[in-house]
Amino acid sequence: MALIDRVLAYTNAHRQRFVRELTELVRFPSVSADPAHAKDVRACASWLAAHLASIGATGARVVETNGHPIVVAVLRASHPDRPTVLVYGHYDVQPAERATEWTSPPFAPVVRDGSLFGRGSCDDKGQLFTHLKALEAWMRVAGDVPVNVICMIEGEEEIGSAALRSFLTENRLALRADVALMSDMLMRGPDRPTITYAVRGEIAMEIELRGTDRDLHSGQFGGAIHDPAQALAELLASLHDARGRIAVPGFYDRVRPVSAAERRYMARVAPDDKEILMSAGAGLGWGERGFSLYERTTSRPSLSINGISAGYTGTGHKAVIPARASAKLSARLVPDQVPDEILALLTRHLEHATPPTMRISATTLLSVPPAQVDLDSAVMRAARESCAAAFGRAPVFVRLGGTIPIVSTLEALGIPAVMIGFALPDDRIHASDEHFELANFHRGIATSARFLGLLGQAGVLENDHRLSLPRRQGRRPHSAVGH
Amino acid sequence: MALIDRVLAYTNAHRQRFVRELTELVRFPSVSADPAHAKDVRACASWLAAHLASIGATGARVVETNGHPIVVAVLRASHPDRPTVLVYGHYDVQPAERATEWTSPPFAPVVRDGSLFGRGSCDDKGQLFTHLKALEAWMRVAGDVPVNVICMIEGEEEIGSAALRSFLTENRLALRADVALMSDMLMRGPDRPTITYAVRGEIAMEIELRGTDRDLHSGQFGGAIHDPAQALAELLASLHDARGRIAVPGFYDRVRPVSAAERRYMARVAPDDKEILMSAGAGLGWGERGFSLYERTTSRPSLSINGISAGYTGTGHKAVIPARASAKLSARLVPDQVPDEILALLTRHLEHATPPTMRISATTLLSVPPAQVDLDSAVMRAARESCAAAFGRAPVFVRLGGTIPIVSTLEALGIPAVMIGFALPDDRIHASDEHFELANFHRGIATSARFLGLLGQAGVLENDHRLSLPRRQGRRPHSAVGH
Repeated sequence: MALIDRVLAYTNAHRQRFVRELTELVRFPSVSADPAHAKDVRACASWLAAHLASIGATGARVVETNGHPIVVAVLRASHPDRPTVLVYGHYDVQPAERATEWTSPPFAPVVRDGSLFGRGSCDDKGQLFTHLKALEAWMRVAGDVPVNVICMIEGEEEIGSAALRSFLTENRLALRADVALMSDMLMRGPDRPTITYAVRGEIAMEIELRGTDRDLHSGQFGGAIHDPAQALAELLASLHDARGRIAVPGFYDRVRPVSAAERRYMARVAPDDKEILMSAGAGLGWGERGFSLYERTTSRPSLSINGISAGYTGTGHKAVIPARASAKLSARLVPDQVPDEILALLTRHLEHATPPTMRISATTLLSVPPAQVDLDSAVMRAARESCAAAFGRAPVFVRLGGTIPIVSTLEALGIPAVMIGFALPDDRIHASDEHFELANFHRGIATSARFLGLLGQAGVLENDHRLSLPRRQGRRPHSAVGH
Repeated sequence: MALIDRVLAYTNAHRQRFVRELTELVRFPSVSADPAHAKDVRACASWLAAHLASIGATGARVVETNGHPIVVAVLRASHPDRPTVLVYGHYDVQPAERATEWTSPPFAPVVRDGSLFGRGSCDDKGQLFTHLKALEAWMRVAGDVPVNVICMIEGEEEIGSAALRSFLTENRLALRADVALMSDMLMRGPDRPTITYAVRGEIAMEIELRGTDRDLHSGQFGGAIHDPAQALAELLASLHDARGRIAVPGFYDRVRPVSAAERRYMARVAPDDKEILMSAGAGLGWGERGFSLYERTTSRPSLSINGISAGYTGTGHKAVIPARASAKLSARLVPDQVPDEILALLTRHLEHATPPTMRISATTLLSVPPAQVDLDSAVMRAARESCAAAFGRAPVFVRLGGTIPIVSTLEALGIPAVMIGFALPDDRIHASDEHFELANFHRGIATSARFLGLLGQAGVLENDHRLSLPRRQGRRPHSAVGH
């Protein structure tokens, strides 16, 4: 029995324990956005470091940062000439919605219908855990790992990964790796393994309009004093034109056009409009004309209003002209948009559109560049083979609408990121009743175990086969994607 | 010493006790809009009924309604042919702002710089209390009151007076009165006694836009699924045109034009733009062109957005497209606008402007018609004389920007409302640090005592002198206002 088969047999034998351990991990309310949860975030990091040590990692520890800590650990291959894989994940989670919106409490994970329900079960604790369990299997079965592994698990992905990005840059030598492996993304659908080759960037800001220093009586002053809630509505309305395009001057100037070949490939393998609408639970699409819904969410930028707060929002009516009104905005960016430039364009537009009756202030909450990974590399070939073997089906290559801040930082350090997703589109990440299908959890473990094994084969990184996207017969041979 | 002078001497001798008693009254957090305060509202009503009984009212009691209770009491004149005065006030208050916005806690009233600070100190507990103390003085000094008095003090003025309006209509015979006396309005300024002859009506509604059944990830769906927060902003922005006029079709159709004579009178006695801006703490005015700020807030209708709630508004950033977004709107109406018609026009406009990606729902929160009282009547003459004597200066006649639901109901029952204000424009009603100047509290008591005494003089209501507004020399003699 080949070594990889024994490793996979081990993962199969321990499935139930793996799920129990994941349940423990999801129990931590490690909400990075909420200072009230700082202690829970730290407790989760400690648990992870201890867990890494228990599977045989050396130097597993919780590294302090200016924000939430980073968990790092190393597993060395016996052969020192083996390549180095940087396994990345994040243990922080999105804030949980009101408890009443969850079928079971967000931080009391339970298995229902073959899925583990809980905040973070999918994004990213469950996906991250696939790699840890693959490493455990290699350690237990082979006594070591087939490649050098650095585990780096952050606690600030949901709030922009600021600490991790400094940490990576400051420790670039110690963290030098041939490839990064991460799973914090979606599969194309059930039984459709998926490798992601592009992620959108993101900027987020909060703006506040102030009219007067205090709330005013709407009877006494209504009609004569400008209402900040109304002015804010008008300001936010100015961000899009009537056709769904972002109306901020210069916003699209640097958007990289997508080749006709890539658009054809996307049209063939990516979800069609109907599928995206079904996944969103929406009846109608919206947005920029001339692009499919998939393109609008991946190769085109977007601008969302994530929250508005103004005036009285309690029970009943309050006759008030509020003193101030505020909103949280964010934009998803695509190559070659530059976050700071977009923030400046947006700020300029908002300041220009603010009426003389109002004072505006703007705070940047987030700034992450977009990233796009070269498909034509040996590591991507290994990823494709691993996926295909674990799922019994060749993977599709997709763009991600979301943002993974670490990917752009890694790229800047010369480390290509192999992004293999195990989450389904309807796993409800960032929403109530988030869950992770356990079948994909186990196939994720197998994919990771195989990928590490393949990379460990002598000379694989030197033997750099050119990769082409799977394509239908009759296409021209140079229709590869990702240049 | 004339009887009225002895009554006034009594009110002067008991000033300190009167303030202590008012302090007790303001201590009740009788917030009608908040169900959590229902018990406090009731406790306040009981206190008032007991207080009325203590000054000699008969049948003082707390009357149950579908909402908050009404306090009623009767004081009979010894001469049964005397006219009947319905003394109206409200003991409920607006919600209090965040405690940090108050210099001293809203429901721990204290005297500072000659004013009593606390939620309701001015609106309307303090002003209402002037009449109760005037009645007490008459009872203690004369042994009875000079006119028949019905006290009717409601607990739902800040939420639309629904219960009181039914109560009035159902008990119209028992509550039959020649005139209503109320003080829930502003003075023109310090030392400028003021009689109000018009109030604006008000409608309020809450609207909600729903996009999907759950919040969506703004990376996964941003650009392809319409954002309810954005759609709401666009919807709210459609309510006004770029020149500050309400853009709802038909909104202005029934607005009664104001005569040139009244506009001249207003321009002479009403606050100018500068004064209104100072009072609001605003640098610039806003709104419908061709009208002074005073006109925009009194003889013209207005539309305010009182609150907006959408998406994530907590600390930091949340990458969410919210499932829904809601707003509270209200409009102030002038004669001859009809609340139900305006609600229908507004609803039609909003439904028409809602994009096909959204479902809209609208709930009516409030519906009160505007009212305008005839100035040419004997009761108004008595009011003018009382004011002039108590303040040492003739009153001015003004329109009120706010809404007093009861005034329109009383008008419909044939009871003219004499509205004498004792609140100053910067007493911060409906805002933090609301307060009531004690000098005006005491002058209010004197005005009320005199007014009751004047009405008690035999035949005053029969001797109906025509009243003309004070005017500058050289004006035509028929420039009276209010026809």
